[in-house]
Amino acid sequence: MLHNLYDTLDNKYTEMVNIRRYLHQHPEVSFKEYKTAEYIANFYKNIGVEVRTNVGGNGVVAKIHGDKSGPTVALRADFDALPIQDEKDVPYKSTVPGVMHACGHDGHTATLLVLAKTLHEMKDQLAGNVVLIHQHAEEFAPGGAIAMIEDGCLEGVDVIFGTHLWATTPTGAIEYRVGPIMAAADRFEIKVQGSGGHGAHPHTTKDAIVIGSQLVMNLQQIVSRRVDPIESAVVTLGSFVAENPFNVIADSAKLEGTVRTFSEDVRSQIEVEIERIVKGTCIASDSSYTYAYHRGYPAVVNHKEQTDFLVEVAENVPGVVHVNETAPQMGGEDFAYYLQHVPGSFFFTGAMPVDEANAYPHHHPKFDIDEKAMLIAAKTLGAATLNYLSIEKSEEATV
Amino acid sequence: MLHNLYDTLDNKYTEMVNIRRYLHQHPEVSFKEYKTAEYIANFYKNIGVEVRTNVGGNGVVAKIHGDKSGPTVALRADFDALPIQDEKDVPYKSTVPGVMHACGHDGHTATLLVLAKTLHEMKDQLAGNVVLIHQHAEEFAPGGAIAMIEDGCLEGVDVIFGTHLWATTPTGAIEYRVGPIMAAADRFEIKVQGSGGHGAHPHTTKDAIVIGSQLVMNLQQIVSRRVDPIESAVVTLGSFVAENPFNVIADSAKLEGTVRTFSEDVRSQIEVEIERIVKGTCIASDSSYTYAYHRGYPAVVNHKEQTDFLVEVAENVPGVVHVNETAPQMGGEDFAYYLQHVPGSFFFTGAMPVDEANAYPHHHPKFDIDEKAMLIAAKTLGAATLNYLSIEKSEEATV
Amino acid sequence: MLHNLYDTLDNKYTEMVNIRRYLHQHPEVSFKEYKTAEYIANFYKNIGVEVRTNVGGNGVVAKIHGDKSGPTVALRADFDALPIQDEKDVPYKSTVPGVMHACGHDGHTATLLVLAKTLHEMKDQLAGNVVLIHQHAEEFAPGGAIAMIEDGCLEGVDVIFGTHLWATTPTGAIEYRVGPIMAAADRFEIKVQGSGGHGAHPHTTKDAIVIGSQLVMNLQQIVSRRVDPIESAVVTLGSFVAENPFNVIADSAKLEGTVRTFSEDVRSQIEVEIERIVKGTCIASDSSYTYAYHRGYPAVVNHKEQTDFLVEVAENVPGVVHVNETAPQMGGEDFAYYLQHVPGSFFFTGAMPVDEANAYPHHHPKFDIDEKAMLIAAKTLGAATLNYLSIEKSEEATV
Amino acid sequence: MLHNLYDTLDNKYTEMVNIRRYLHQHPEVSFKEYKTAEYIANFYKNIGVEVRTNVGGNGVVAKIHGDKSGPTVALRADFDALPIQDEKDVPYKSTVPGVMHACGHDGHTATLLVLAKTLHEMKDQLAGNVVLIHQHAEEFAPGGAIAMIEDGCLEGVDVIFGTHLWATTPTGAIEYRVGPIMAAADRFEIKVQGSGGHGAHPHTTKDAIVIGSQLVMNLQQIVSRRVDPIESAVVTLGSFVAENPFNVIADSAKLEGTVRTFSEDVRSQIEVEIERIVKGTCIASDSSYTYAYHRGYPAVVNHKEQTDFLVEVAENVPGVVHVNETAPQMGGEDFAYYLQHVPGSFFFTGAMPVDEANAYPHHHPKFDIDEKAMLIAAKTLGAATLNYLSIEKSEEATV
Repeated sequence: MLHNLYDTLDNKYTEMVNIRRYLHQHPEVSFKEYKTAEYIANFYKNIGVEVRTNVGGNGVVAKIHGDKSGPTVALRADFDALPIQDEKDVPYKSTVPGVMHACGHDGHTATLLVLAKTLHEMKDQLAGNVVLIHQHAEEFAPGGAIAMIEDGCLEGVDVIFGTHLWATTPTGAIEYRVGPIMAAADRFEIKVQGSGGHGAHPHTTKDAIVIGSQLVMNLQQIVSRRVDPIESAVVTLGSFVAENPFNVIADSAKLEGTVRTFSEDVRSQIEVEIERIVKGTCIASDSSYTYAYHRGYPAVVNHKEQTDFLVEVAENVPGVVHVNETAPQMGGEDFAYYLQHVPGSFFFTGAMPVDEANAYPHHHPKFDIDEKAMLIAAKTLGAATLNYLSIEKSEEATV
Repeated sequence: MLHNLYDTLDNKYTEMVNIRRYLHQHPEVSFKEYKTAEYIANFYKNIGVEVRTNVGGNGVVAKIHGDKSGPTVALRADFDALPIQDEKDVPYKSTVPGVMHACGHDGHTATLLVLAKTLHEMKDQLAGNVVLIHQHAEEFAPGGAIAMIEDGCLEGVDVIFGTHLWATTPTGAIEYRVGPIMAAADRFEIKVQGSGGHGAHPHTTKDAIVIGSQLVMNLQQIVSRRVDPIESAVVTLGSFVAENPFNVIADSAKLEGTVRTFSEDVRSQIEVEIERIVKGTCIASDSSYTYAYHRGYPAVVNHKEQTDFLVEVAENVPGVVHVNETAPQMGGEDFAYYLQHVPGSFFFTGAMPVDEANAYPHHHPKFDIDEKAMLIAAKTLGAATLNYLSIEKSEEATV
Repeated sequence: MLHNLYDTLDNKYTEMVNIRRYLHQHPEVSFKEYKTAEYIANFYKNIGVEVRTNVGGNGVVAKIHGDKSGPTVALRADFDALPIQDEKDVPYKSTVPGVMHACGHDGHTATLLVLAKTLHEMKDQLAGNVVLIHQHAEEFAPGGAIAMIEDGCLEGVDVIFGTHLWATTPTGAIEYRVGPIMAAADRFEIKVQGSGGHGAHPHTTKDAIVIGSQLVMNLQQIVSRRVDPIESAVVTLGSFVAENPFNVIADSAKLEGTVRTFSEDVRSQIEVEIERIVKGTCIASDSSYTYAYHRGYPAVVNHKEQTDFLVEVAENVPGVVHVNETAPQMGGEDFAYYLQHVPGSFFFTGAMPVDEANAYPHHHPKFDIDEKAMLIAAKTLGAATLNYLSIEKSEEATV
Repeated sequence: MLHNLYDTLDNKYTEMVNIRRYLHQHPEVSFKEYKTAEYIANFYKNIGVEVRTNVGGNGVVAKIHGDKSGPTVALRADFDALPIQDEKDVPYKSTVPGVMHACGHDGHTATLLVLAKTLHEMKDQLAGNVVLIHQHAEEFAPGGAIAMIEDGCLEGVDVIFGTHLWATTPTGAIEYRVGPIMAAADRFEIKVQGSGGHGAHPHTTKDAIVIGSQLVMNLQQIVSRRVDPIESAVVTLGSFVAENPFNVIADSAKLEGTVRTFSEDVRSQIEVEIERIVKGTCIASDSSYTYAYHRGYPAVVNHKEQTDFLVEVAENVPGVVHVNETAPQMGGEDFAYYLQHVPGSFFFTGAMPVDEANAYPHHHPKFDIDEKAMLIAAKTLGAATLNYLSIEKSEEATV
């Protein structure tokens, strides 16, 4: 049955690439993925698979009912893009100005659609069901997962698997980890309110750019001095905006950033430390501020049994060269929420472009993937599904 | 003759206010003041004064020929607005989003138009000529003055006067200074080129926001440590833009600012020091940069004889309560260029709103003036004109 | 035999405390521990144990020959103090101004001396030998361990154990770790050479205090931005000296610090990053610098078999309440070198003062230990020694 | 009479140099100038001039009574040295480690002693008296002037003159200014109290070096952003001390500095701003501080009539090439206090070493003067004295 799966996927590789490239050219940012959702739903309608749309927002959930009874495996792929300008020079470059699939979700979607089509074709052999969770809005908290779960996407599901194509890991590698594999990812906003005026009269103003810059420098000390060096933490200011004519002194500055942690204690500590630094810096400059800290996704914590199962499966998938334990990643993922409800495992599938010079980090304006990795991801997820259904079956059988 | 001037101006005060408010509601940014220029030109056409348009760009120059022969006095008013959002709550608030007369040029224009109309009505008594220079683009280097001078606006002019309504000086005050009264005003641009990436992976990036913030802090040392404390200097960063999603690390940051100096040596020193600091900061963070320094207006240097003359005139103008020597101002003014060609003097006319709580600094989103100050400015410029023509006449007479 | 050991140690507890307090009152800084070494040597001479002095410097090595043949176990205690002023208010406070046992080495020494005396009294039962390594200069690289090893202190040694009394871990806890338990600890020195002068004339100088302060701020970015957040690293500047009259501008500033890492790659990266930041900061301020990076102790990497053995032993020692795996510590230890030559394990013995309010971190001017912990340390090391000798014996026997 | 003065001084030039070099080799810091005071007193005793010692501390006051009646002119020279290590390579280098005449007070003293001797020799021609004020402790607030005045040094004095040899102004120049010529000079002390600990455990500490460095950076904004750029101000941190072993985290840091201003408003503003910045910075880092601001000498404000008189005198002194108005100097001088009690003028005497490469700023470890300048200073002060006595006499005569 596995060889049948692998062969079919090999034969559909061109279709997979075409789907991915179509999506790459038509990216939509988080919570606005209307046409992508429609595209996915139509795909399922066209092949006759049961599909539910608007699940918890723009989410799409399809379900393949195996002809034989058995457990239910869920597979998840996210499909939103990022507000980044595509700077690649390729035929399938984004056609939407300022929006880009710079994190590989186009590939996740193509992988899952073609795998679903393949499993659907094998449904007479399946002892159980497969739920295909196409999730919107992974990139922007609160994310789509919570709402989709609340809207029932995990109903009847026994186990869940998901993967992330990883452009800085060589194709052929599968990376797993028991326990925390991805970090808690929070967002914070700071507005420094100084007092603007003419650029030539600093003493009549409170210069929000100087205050904001001082703040950026001071915030470096959270990671360098305040957090236990044994713990991992990231405090990033992604945005600093005080846009004015050159000869004006800035009235205010707006900063936004993200915090990544694995430990709940460190997470809480950082939330408090940021505010103390903001407060002190503003007192020093006689200015005021607003500060908001938004808790985003918790850490993705993989279950031991399901991860061990996955590792065993992966080691036998054609095209998989290495199955490695990975260090935990500082990136966040709302896959975390699924794992709070059902057991499962989230892993990385190496997808580094063949020419390493083209291997840009995720969210980079020139980000791209090795499309061959989609085939490996599909085979691994497919093999995990088939094995899980048969294992469970045999276990049931033996009972 | 002077009393006639003063009475006529008093009678036209309402007209002056109406013009000012109309202009306040219809501001246009530097180099795009097409309709304002048209409005001014039409004003002159309607009262039958010779007018030349498109002088060095959007500049407008009118000329009143006195019935008797004599010297030529030039008076100058600027008429461009600023890219600032009007936040006042008044009936004559700007109707153009993001554009505002936040520096009083609307008042300058209304003052000069009504003064010109008055002088034109007295032309049979004038022994000489009056040139009305309505200058565009004072707020943005290279400014309008250079081009208007090249286009002949000072031809035949013997002396020039100009004033700036000053909202933080009480109405009734005239402030003068022999020698430098306003600073050289330069502009600079810095682009810090780091290397962007995912907010959770700082070590794979070069964080342009941290580099830019460090730069802002380091640049403070130019004034605090590098410039002779006896000299005056301002280094302001008016704009800091690195706009990104919160979870991205900034690829680049764009900073713009202004430098104000009175001494040419300090000016040159600062241009060099900025670059050294930018260079060192970028080396420290293994990043690169672009830096451009644009020399703007030189210092406004008033001529002694003409300033002494003006002081004497001002002391006798009704409504003028104090005539004070002022400290030099850090603001720049392209009136500087006129004074490089003909003798003259530039002075400040107090225009603080009656309710001091409404006295915001120039370029502030709530900036406003005491409109009564326009009358004082008109009387002072008018008296200077009439006195100058008669003095010169009597001098000629005695020859 | 173990009960005999425990009882004897209990009986000698007062002696242990007296020794520790005597040493506490007479601390000597690293490489100058002449009298402490003499004290230790005399202790052994008095009880008739073979002792060798001046081993690799001020080191002292004693050896107990068991009456029966067997393997050789080494136990190590360090005995140098720190250049810190004792600020405790206790009868046994340091009598040497500016020098203090602020890290517990006095306790280590007392523990080992009394344990040695006890084992010596049991020598007729010992199947093998015990080497007592009293090491000088643990606090200051290059440390005493390298020289003592070169001078033969590990000759014939089969296994080595050592412990650190830990004042922030409750008494009763033994903390172990297989693999890296303590960090590589390096030292660096930076001298910023500005150009001094009168405090009122900053523009004629290059202010070394401002340059140094900027450097301190910029160096925070190494940990916050440059090092992979999954890795642990510490960059501390422990000393900043630019001592001058208040009205002078500093000619130079001297900074010293330490770097802690577990990974050799991160270690090398930081060495390079510091210099880049120093270089860039000095270019920005047109100043010069000297920079020296001294590699100190490598990471302490415990051997698995010996650590597992120790854990098993510790779990049965009276007074030991918890045996926990610890997170790796950022502190450095030249015990690292012994483990590069012979197998063994280094562990922490909880020694938190009973009144937690007195539990100061190591190197704090009010640092103190719970002396009861010495008894636990002695019993654990003693039990490990006796068990090792008997295990080896029985293994030999079975051969 | 003037030519007699000039010739006599020329003949005593070698003596002047010898005195200066003796003093240069035997410097004493402020308030500890016991032997220097004794040296001065002995000089007067040897030549039979009335001298009073221990005036307001180590001050020495001599008085020459002219044979004829007339007014009393006071001349002042300071004689303390600085805690700076002499780094010059000259035969007359300081013999006291860490102490140095790095501000020329040795030259001031030699100048005044030899001038006094000369005037004493001319006493039969003098119509009035000369008071020689040898002041201790000019370099360290509260200075010696206040106490000497309280102790009567100005009793009966009609006018006072004083000069400072200035090593960065060419020999031959006399620099004067009506009104403020030297700044108010204040001192401040900040102690940042963090929480020390082991260098490897930053999260258990509050790193006083990082806090102090942040403070230094933040304080730059007082001059760069908070003070009106038209005003002059200096905020210098001359000392930053947090001396520890490299692997300790600093418990506290001690900073000292000076503030220089001409305006009392700016002076008060800066005192407040420093504290706000210290407070905010410590809040940001959860640490505490102590802050003390000590008002030092006020600005030296020269009297117009006496300064004009001096300028006229100086223009005719042989060796004086230029008599220039100087910009005000940021340095402080407790000569300020004398001018609050009697009219007078303080001026600079150019004393730049002939080889300009040796012209180091005052307080520099390689500071030196052109000794020829002492002769010019002596002649100028002497001529002012003689002219003043004769003017006053003739004025008296005419009454």
